[in-house]
Amino acid sequence: MGISVINFEKKFTKIKELHSYKLVAQMNDYHFKLVKMKREFIWHSHPETDEVFIIIDGKMQIDLRDETLYLTKGEMVVIPRGIEHKPSSREECKIVLIEPVGTLNTGNIGGDLTDTELELI
Amino acid sequence: MGISVINFEKKFTKIKELHSYKLVAQMNDYHFKLVKMKREFIWHSHPETDEVFIIIDGKMQIDLRDETLYLTKGEMVVIPRGIEHKPSSREECKIVLIEPVGTLNTGNIGGDLTDTELELI
Repeated sequence: MGISVINFEKKFTKIKELHSYKLVAQMNDYHFKLVKMKREFIWHSHPETDEVFIIIDGKMQIDLRDETLYLTKGEMVVIPRGIEHKPSSREECKIVLIEPVGTLNTGNIGGDLTDTELELI
Repeated sequence: MGISVINFEKKFTKIKELHSYKLVAQMNDYHFKLVKMKREFIWHSHPETDEVFIIIDGKMQIDLRDETLYLTKGEMVVIPRGIEHKPSSREECKIVLIEPVGTLNTGNIGGDLTDTELELI
């Protein structure tokens, strides 16, 4: 993908749809994906990998089985492999996800909400 | 390190010294490190890994052998493995680095500027 500077704000202006993951960068075998979220997602886990959320704008919460994490702009969290979590946001939230190539948004659950397209923007 | 939300701005207020890398998170075998930079660094490469820079505040430049990248707040870049680069900033710049555990700031060059301490903050 060459060496190009990625401006998160500008990249997000290219994303019109909610819940459609877009690829912006690759570091070794990890993808950097952008997504605009406004929904309550499903409980799932990623048995094979940790997963990073970085909040670029807005706020979201991630329910865990024993606590709830609240994230806002300028914050990040690492969800460890195998930990069940349920991300949600009432208002539109702009998120960077970092995870290994091939990691699915629905993790171990699959189903209709699985986003299998990953357009490079 | 548990599951805790990391606020970049708050973490940076804990860092008093320039050029002292601080660990804030680990994802699988990757470290997330914060550094405040205000210097012209040395030419080096990381023959074994790509390296990510995310700019949290300020601006910096990364000289490559055939071009110069300019980065400002809200931007990121992936420097591919083996590519010689020279980061620098005239004013203080707050940077998040993402790279495999054990990656040295001076890469293939080593020397006095190598930061071997990595305090968790």
